[in-house]
Amino acid sequence: MSPTPSARAAIDREEGAEFAPRFSADGLLTCVTVDARSGEVLMVAHMNAEALDKTLSSRIMHYWSRSRQCLWRKGDTSGQVQRLEELRVDCDQDALLARVTVGGDGGACHTGRRSCFYRRIERGENGPRLAPLAKT
Amino acid sequence: MSPTPSARAAIDREEGAEFAPRFSADGLLTCVTVDARSGEVLMVAHMNAEALDKTLSSRIMHYWSRSRQCLWRKGDTSGQVQRLEELRVDCDQDALLARVTVGGDGGACHTGRRSCFYRRIERGENGPRLAPLAKT
Repeated sequence: MSPTPSARAAIDREEGAEFAPRFSADGLLTCVTVDARSGEVLMVAHMNAEALDKTLSSRIMHYWSRSRQCLWRKGDTSGQVQRLEELRVDCDQDALLARVTVGGDGGACHTGRRSCFYRRIERGENGPRLAPLAKT
Repeated sequence: MSPTPSARAAIDREEGAEFAPRFSADGLLTCVTVDARSGEVLMVAHMNAEALDKTLSSRIMHYWSRSRQCLWRKGDTSGQVQRLEELRVDCDQDALLARVTVGGDGGACHTGRRSCFYRRIERGENGPRLAPLAKT
């Protein structure tokens, strides 16, 4: 029995060579950005179609800032420009994984740290608490 | 000059020990799940408050399925149960990074692959195209 049209579309999306990003209702994809050399997760951000186009054409990471509602070329103010080494897409094409080389001081977080994920959640007496990682 | 109340709140959120997750308008956090040993990014999914609570209490990854609109204990049907080793939160507390040990066949993707990010975006003659990674 042949797959139904919707099953066929899912198979094409997952196994095909066509890049057909599935933007959310508000026009965004989630992007996980990792250090190309170490694989460390640096940050999670979002891209609209324009940020994606500019990232692919310039090989410099562009994001859509949800808080400021504007296109954002990472590093314009901080110097932490991210050069795109490789962009991957996930099975259902609604998330991206960017492998980057970070310029400037090598950081990605606006707090000055290399990664935005510098705290872990621990059990506290009154519920979960945050604790700094030994090395960030 | 002391910081304004909103600046003070941002500093507390970024530097404090209080876990105060910032759920999106539809009640979700983005969760990046990585292999605790290799650091490889396995998948990106979402958690609502219940999925987060169950993950922290059971140390087994639970997500909220946006497509099926239901709580989802990863591995219930596939056997690819993810044991939580460490949960991190990002600077503004709207994204999580879960370091997990994967059970079953060691995969995380419903297509059978270890990671959902098994294709990279390449330049094609008529725009971006997808190509399999050499090793997935």
